[in-house]
This record gives sequence, C-alpha cells and structure tokens, in this order.
Amino acid sequence: MQLQDIPTPAALIDTARMQHNIERMQSRMNTLGVKFRPHVKTTKCLPVARAQIAAGAQGITVSTLKEAEQFFADGVTDILYAVGMVATKLPQALALLRSGCKLTLLTDNLASAQAITAFGRARAQVFDVMIEIDTDGHRSGVKPEDGSLLAIGEALQGGARLAGVLTHAGSSYELSTPEALEALAEVERAGCVRAAERLRAAGFACPIVSVGSTPTALAARHLEGVTEVRAGVYVLFDLVMANVGVCTTDDVALSVLTTVIGHQPDKGWAIVDAGWMAMSRDRGTQKQATDYGYGQASTEDGRVLPGWLLTSANQEHGILSYAGAADAGAAADIEARFPIGTRLRVLPNHACATGAQFPEYQAIAPGGAAQTWERFHGW
Amino acid sequence: MQLQDIPTPAALIDTARMQHNIERMQSRMNTLGVKFRPHVKTTKCLPVARAQIAAGAQGITVSTLKEAEQFFADGVTDILYAVGMVATKLPQALALLRSGCKLTLLTDNLASAQAITAFGRARAQVFDVMIEIDTDGHRSGVKPEDGSLLAIGEALQGGARLAGVLTHAGSSYELSTPEALEALAEVERAGCVRAAERLRAAGFACPIVSVGSTPTALAARHLEGVTEVRAGVYVLFDLVMANVGVCTTDDVALSVLTTVIGHQPDKGWAIVDAGWMAMSRDRGTQKQATDYGYGQASTEDGRVLPGWLLTSANQEHGILSYAGAADAGAAADIEARFPIGTRLRVLPNHACATGAQFPEYQAIAPGGAAQTWERFHGW
Repeated sequence: MQLQDIPTPAALIDTARMQHNIERMQSRMNTLGVKFRPHVKTTKCLPVARAQIAAGAQGITVSTLKEAEQFFADGVTDILYAVGMVATKLPQALALLRSGCKLTLLTDNLASAQAITAFGRARAQVFDVMIEIDTDGHRSGVKPEDGSLLAIGEALQGGARLAGVLTHAGSSYELSTPEALEALAEVERAGCVRAAERLRAAGFACPIVSVGSTPTALAARHLEGVTEVRAGVYVLFDLVMANVGVCTTDDVALSVLTTVIGHQPDKGWAIVDAGWMAMSRDRGTQKQATDYGYGQASTEDGRVLPGWLLTSANQEHGILSYAGAADAGAAADIEARFPIGTRLRVLPNHACATGAQFPEYQAIAPGGAAQTWERFHGW
Repeated sequence: MQLQDIPTPAALIDTARMQHNIERMQSRMNTLGVKFRPHVKTTKCLPVARAQIAAGAQGITVSTLKEAEQFFADGVTDILYAVGMVATKLPQALALLRSGCKLTLLTDNLASAQAITAFGRARAQVFDVMIEIDTDGHRSGVKPEDGSLLAIGEALQGGARLAGVLTHAGSSYELSTPEALEALAEVERAGCVRAAERLRAAGFACPIVSVGSTPTALAARHLEGVTEVRAGVYVLFDLVMANVGVCTTDDVALSVLTTVIGHQPDKGWAIVDAGWMAMSRDRGTQKQATDYGYGQASTEDGRVLPGWLLTSANQEHGILSYAGAADAGAAADIEARFPIGTRLRVLPNHACATGAQFPEYQAIAPGGAAQTWERFHGW
C-alpha cells in the first residue's frame, strides 16, 4: 500500500524520522556511558521496539504487565515493569518469571515490599525489585533521604532481591529551557545516586541506578553513578516535546492522516474526519508556550502548514481553522484552500495518547510505501 | 467472575443503572411519539446495543463505517452513518449495501452529494442519503435557510435518494439549566423541521426528520414534525452529563475499577493504577460548574466519596486527593484511609472517551457477578 491509498483516519509513523530519533537518543546514551532501556509504552508496537534494540537498547521498560507479556512472547526477555507493584498483580508477574522472563518489579512502600517478599518466599521464587525514588515531587517514590528507604531495602530479602533504585523526573515536561532541563537532569541524577549510596552504605547491594525522561535524558551533562537511562516518547516525539524544546516539529514521527469532509465557510472552518477519537483528548500543549489545539496541520506529504490547527474536536469530527498571527486572508475561501477530499496530516500533542487510539500504525517509508504495524491496548 | 476478582484497571458497567437509563430514554421517546435510533459510538458493544433494541430502539446510529460493519455482522440491519460522507469511503459503503445492510449516509455539501450520486449511478446502486442541518452552529451542516439546501436535495437523484434531514444540537453539552436545554431542543426541532418543509415545498420527498443529543432528547417538550431521535451517552451517562443536569452521579453506569498502589502522605495523595490511559484524557468537566478532575472516586461497591477526585493523571498513575470544601481532616492520614490494595471505582468525565480506552467492559449485575462484554476500537 502507498500513503495515498490509506483510509482515514490513520496513525502514520514516518520511519525515517523515527530511525533518526532512535539513533539520536542511543548515540547520546553511548556518549554518556550508560545502558539505555527504552519505555515501550509510547508505541506498544513490536517493530518499533525491535528498531530500538537493533540500535543498541538493552532491555525494555513497560507500564503494564500486558506489555511485559506481549513483548516477552515476541522474544524480549529483559523487562522492567516501572509502575508500583501491588499484591494482586503478583500471580501475573510470577507466571512471567516462571516462563523465563527476566522481569524486574518496582515499589516505593513497605507494605508492597513485604507483600512481594512474602509471596516470593511462599513460592520459592526471588523477585528482582527496584525501589522508586522521588527526585522532583511529581508523582510516586520515596525521597532519597526518607527513613523508609532503608526499611524497604531491608524488606526485600528472601523472596525478593533489591535490584537497584529508579527515578523518573516527570516534571521535566513542564520546563522549556535547556538550562532548566539540564538542572533538573542533575537533580534527577544526584537524587537517585544519593539513594543508591545510602542503601549501599547500609550494606545493601544496589547494582542498578536507573533514571530518565525524554527531556532529562537529552539534557543531562553527565550521568556519573547512573547505570541506565529510560525514555519513551523520544522515539516519535510530539508537540509537547517541541514546546519543551527537545525536538522540532520536523522531528515528530507520528501524525494522523485525515480527510476534509465539509466546511463552514463563514467561520473559516474545514471539517476533517479526525476528531478526538483519532487525536485523543490530550491537550498537553494547552498550558505551554504554543497551544496547538488538538494538533498541527501538515500537508499529506508532511509539510507543516503554519497557523493551521485542529482547533476543536468532537468524537469523529475535527475543526481545522487558522489560529496563526493576524492574517486577514488566511481563512478566506477555505473551500478553495482545502477542498472536500483534501488529505492532511495532523501532528499530535502527545504521541503516547494518540497512538493508543489506534489498533495499528501505518509505517511510511521514504517514497510513501506503507506497512501496517500492529499495536495493542488494554491491560 | 465476581467484582472483587476483576484485575485493575477495568471498565465496569453497572447493568442495573444502564437498564434504567435505557428505559428512561425509550419511555420518553414513546411518550413524544418518535422512533428512537441510539448512537452506538458510546459503547461499540453488542450486548449494550441489544439491550437498547430490546427496549424498543429502531435501528442504530454509528460514527464510523467500522461500527456499521461490526453491528451489521452481528445482525443489526438498519444503520445510519451520521458523519459526513466523502468519496473515498463509498466503496466501503457500497459493500455494506450489497451485503443487505440498510445503510443511510449523510452529507452537508454539494461536492459530496454529487460524488455519492455519480458513484451510485455508475454502479446501478441507489444510496439513501440525509442532509445534515446546522441548527446551533456548533459543527457541520447547512443552515435551514441556506441556499445550498435545495441544490443538495436536487443533486441526490439517480444514484442517490434524499432520505431526510438530520441535525445534532451538540452545543447542548455547554448548557446546565432545564430552561436553556428546553429552548435549545426547540431550536433543534424547529430548524430541522423547517429544512424538511423547504425541501418538501420544492417537491422533494423528505420522509425522515432526525434530531438529537442526550440533553435535548431529555429536555424536549414536544417533537412535532420530527420522526426520529438519536442519542448516545444517555445509556451510561457521565460527569459531564451530571453537570449538564440530565442525570445524577447515581445514574452513571460506567466506572473505572482501580487499586491503590502508593501514597505521598505529606501531600495527601493516594496513587492508583488508573491513569489517563484508563480514564482517557477527557477533561470535559474542566469548564463546567463542578470540575471533577479526571474522575469522581467511589467505593468498590459504587458509593460516591464526596470531595475525593482523581485530581491528576499520568499514563498509568492516577493521583487521588481531596478536593472538596475546606476540611482539614479529610486528607490527613491518607495511608489509613486508603491503604495499599484498596479498590475504588472512578466515575469518568466522558463515557464515550473512557470506554474507548478498554478492549472490553466488565458488566456487573446486582450482587457483583461480572460478565465480559467486548468492545472494538479503530476504524
């Protein structure tokens, strides 16, 4: 199939851009001297993970045990489940372990650490577990100096083994200057290394020190004491990342292909068949320097149309209108500019959210040849 | 399976509430003397559509041709595709027609009307087509008094047949008083009837006059001249509809089952395993009277916990915190109030968006017995 034959709406991956993004991150990790463990939650798509591994990634990070099961079934064995473990999910983790998956779990509290240990002990199994560290206050984790850190380490013995410490500076998405990103990357690194040092000083082996988010991974000056980095959205990038300043719109490898199905000429609107069901409801750029509405319009072959945004969306209808700087002529004669049947690409706010709306990607090679890459969803 | 055995996160449908919602709407349509054609885009789930049809619905409305194909394969024959048709999708519609599906299409412009007619004529097929009328300015459609209305009617001859007129007062979602909703329902009714009258006066048969949105369907005082009503979200309801005033939170039949996986005690946060991937990114209540964040927390058995909201969400993490009126004690000791492993239900902003995040619903009968109801996604 060729690009021009793909029914709309469809999620396109520009494979040349994707490959460029993969190489950029991997080469940065190689320079910094750390292992790279990509977070596959962004795409949940085997050909993408294969390309990441081919470029040098060592193991993957997942956000659900379903991802772990699917990627393990496809031959990926070294898998980190980077969401706090809870007792009810242990049988599912055990099944993976017993099938030969090198699964690593995560916890940030004593109750779960004890539950994992007890469950493992009762089944003569040892779970590798990392302790989640909170280095920027944005979500989960124990503070590097928190008293409970050593207690959790202490609990991970017998049916569990302390594999290391992990942090994710998710607040990096709220920044937009290289200086602020570099400073946060250092906070992330230093906090996680500090937690590892406290554990080691107390006599625990703590081999892995894992940090990462796309912005901090790309901004870190050095990663002394860190053994591995995780990042997810870098593989496709999106408009949120463009606002954060770690890519340009020309790096964004994901877009939604759509067709013009109507107009409201007096309002300067073209109606397209990509609504929020295709774009997702993610409005991540709403509070950033440039608000892209539901997405940035481009031509079918991927040339950005400055000022033309998906300014509003219903379930299967998107409203394309001109939101650029004052330009009286821009929205005039919308029917002539975007006739019924015109095909456009729309760059998304957030690649993880938009991808999840589709059962598959259409991978577009240079020249326009398309290949279907399945992805999965659910838990 | 029983409610307490369902892995989290999961999308639950309370079947008693759903049945009550179905009967409420159908009984209202019966009283108003119109056919009812539910919009199945909300659930994309056969058991739900079957319950709607069993209660008296005549035909269904769909938002994608994939929905048409799936429901037709499951035995539903009378299907209205209520998104503006575009030439590239005609082969798919033709295949449905030739398989015996009574498919009706929609257009609001001359170019598409002509394309449908020419395509039908070339294949000796007659497409039933409705003209979309814009009665409230919120999206697609021609104004009832627009000059192009008769031209589109004129174009629908030969390979197509004018089946009627259709409108959707989607701006009803922005209202919140019974008076405003009743007034908009009358604008919706009168505008659509007026368009039908203009077409009939010009000599066109225009048998169907189709109106609807959940709020206007429930608010209309009378529907003189209307032959059928469409509504979708009423079957499950959600927090947006509670703010609009057409249901209470006790009517909301969809919730996301989730488990507490961590805490940040100093912030009064419990971390749950339902993030935006489960809830969707829909923040429909953000600009309404009550902003429910990413959702309203309830106990596992469905009792609303006033003031406790999913105030923030990452992909697989939700942050549950107290957002109610000043109550110094509410957030204190969050670990004791919601211990690790606590299971909660979260009512969603928007049932259509949240359902789409899941490959299946768990239908919960009174007493807690659970049944898996598959749903589909994609195009």
